[in-house]
Amino acid sequence: MSRKIEEFNRYRQEMNDRLLSAGNNKIIKRIFNLDTNTYMDGALDSRTKEMLGLVASMVLRCDDCIKYHLIQCHQQGVSSDEMMEIFGVANLVGGTIVIPHTRRALEFWEELQLA
Amino acid sequence: MSRKIEEFNRYRQEMNDRLLSAGNNKIIKRIFNLDTNTYMDGALDSRTKEMLGLVASMVLRCDDCIKYHLIQCHQQGVSSDEMMEIFGVANLVGGTIVIPHTRRALEFWEELQLA
Amino acid sequence: MSRKIEEFNRYRQEMNDRLLSAGNNKIIKRIFNLDTNTYMDGALDSRTKEMLGLVASMVLRCDDCIKYHLIQCHQQGVSSDEMMEIFGVANLVGGTIVIPHTRRALEFWEELQLA
Amino acid sequence: MSRKIEEFNRYRQEMNDRLLSAGNNKIIKRIFNLDTNTYMDGALDSRTKEMLGLVASMVLRCDDCIKYHLIQCHQQGVSSDEMMEIFGVANLVGGTIVIPHTRRALEFWEELQLA
Amino acid sequence: MSRKIEEFNRYRQEMNDRLLSAGNNKIIKRIFNLDTNTYMDGALDSRTKEMLGLVASMVLRCDDCIKYHLIQCHQQGVSSDEMMEIFGVANLVGGTIVIPHTRRALEFWEELQLA
Amino acid sequence: MSRKIEEFNRYRQEMNDRLLSAGNNKIIKRIFNLDTNTYMDGALDSRTKEMLGLVASMVLRCDDCIKYHLIQCHQQGVSSDEMMEIFGVANLVGGTIVIPHTRRALEFWEELQLA
Repeated sequence: MSRKIEEFNRYRQEMNDRLLSAGNNKIIKRIFNLDTNTYMDGALDSRTKEMLGLVASMVLRCDDCIKYHLIQCHQQGVSSDEMMEIFGVANLVGGTIVIPHTRRALEFWEELQLA
Repeated sequence: MSRKIEEFNRYRQEMNDRLLSAGNNKIIKRIFNLDTNTYMDGALDSRTKEMLGLVASMVLRCDDCIKYHLIQCHQQGVSSDEMMEIFGVANLVGGTIVIPHTRRALEFWEELQLA
Repeated sequence: MSRKIEEFNRYRQEMNDRLLSAGNNKIIKRIFNLDTNTYMDGALDSRTKEMLGLVASMVLRCDDCIKYHLIQCHQQGVSSDEMMEIFGVANLVGGTIVIPHTRRALEFWEELQLA
Repeated sequence: MSRKIEEFNRYRQEMNDRLLSAGNNKIIKRIFNLDTNTYMDGALDSRTKEMLGLVASMVLRCDDCIKYHLIQCHQQGVSSDEMMEIFGVANLVGGTIVIPHTRRALEFWEELQLA
Repeated sequence: MSRKIEEFNRYRQEMNDRLLSAGNNKIIKRIFNLDTNTYMDGALDSRTKEMLGLVASMVLRCDDCIKYHLIQCHQQGVSSDEMMEIFGVANLVGGTIVIPHTRRALEFWEELQLA
Repeated sequence: MSRKIEEFNRYRQEMNDRLLSAGNNKIIKRIFNLDTNTYMDGALDSRTKEMLGLVASMVLRCDDCIKYHLIQCHQQGVSSDEMMEIFGVANLVGGTIVIPHTRRALEFWEELQLA
């Protein structure tokens, strides 16, 4: 796996662990739990929901959220052709302000293909 | 059709017409044209893209954009069970700040079912 | 109670009921439940948390969320002098883009004093 | 003057007066004062600054702020051809989420031409 | 003091100095001055206002603003149990898009405890 | 040229190239093309439009977009006195949440003067 993906996963995991083992964290814990449940198969399959999570993260311009959903989309078998159209919707709705996040998203996405 | 849906469509159409017939509107015109193209069938089908457009509109909290994509999702045969899961993703990612928009979205969605 | 407050409460209650009685609404239900728990007394008292919820709603510029937290702050005995300082923080951090929401917030707050 | 413009000005003035005469409003007062100073002639003329204020209001999607700066731009002699290009920048940078605000902006702008 | 805290303070101080010594900076200067005044004891004490500033910074997702208010909250004696509840409100209102910022906030907060 | 400016230009160019040579990128390509056209001389000159693009990028708080428009403004001969007033409008409208971006903007702007 590329160093960028590894580093992303490592920091994310370490800080999630610290948040989930911190004192008085009931609300945070429940939000994390809800986060897991929201993307599970239901009336919509998990794959579609991960694409929804990705486009939401892109228009809200959160690089770490984008990376997380790129990983999930990759595991769910989203193709590069599909990904380019998600990028299209995000940049259309969210505007050119999304372009720098799209550059970083493409770089991360291409590393996932090699992983 | 309900008065709310009609009124929404009427104002949207009228002002779009005025934007598209205004002078010196080349950029706006091309954005409108791009908007149409982005949601067409491609690697992802139009139905999925409309769901992407909806969730993006919800987390960015634009009521009119939400209504527009609700109409499109309805025409594409998105079910109420699927819609509730889109609402779920939007409220999870975007937070409780999205709830008031979800109230209005549900109201509009239910009117679309009766239309 | 003023008509504005009544109308706000009525619509909010009606649409919450419809969201909570809709099919396939597990995620939405849990977010609503979490919403209630988050503002309860804990290490911080409920009064402080409602002020936190209000300032968050103001900088994110959601009028309905602002109204809801204004009602809660009023019930928790927040004074008008305290409220003006919350408005101050929100307008400083969020910028003059928050001013129109502050106008509507003051109007609603003053109606709550008469209620 | 059109009823929409009049109503906008009336409510804005009334609530500004109430904010400026409220108790404990030192921070709000100073923000209002700063607001006035920021758009005065300087290295950039007031006309350019009002266009800057307008585009900022459009991408942040605040209808009342947009209306206010439309009034100022109109008084500073900004032409409809120039306005369409400001709309272009705002919709490009901010995305199609700005379109509904652009519809309302155009409507208000056209009423200002008749005023 | 940890290197992260030191580096944050150093860059912030250096660039603030350059902003405050730049030519034609009257508006920026007054905003900085207002910033200081807004968080002073008043009807609400400074400690509460710093918590308001923090939650506003979290939902608006500005890491540097978050760090600054974490430092202030730490100096005002906010406890880790209280901090976790502020994190709770921010993540509930602002959504899971706030989680990556919460990870970095917890890391910085824990370094402040050791400082 | 300073290393920061060079590095910014290099990464931007490389990732733009990869986006523009990726498969199925029609929408992205057209957005890039539109981006170029929007800032060309028209009823408003390119210089004014770059200032509009900059203030929009500042209130939306996108560091890379800010850097790009700083480069363009520099090439169009915007003076440091004018720049400080753009910073003023952005910080007033967008609030103190814009300050950290203004620090980085000033640093980049000063490097551009030396370039």
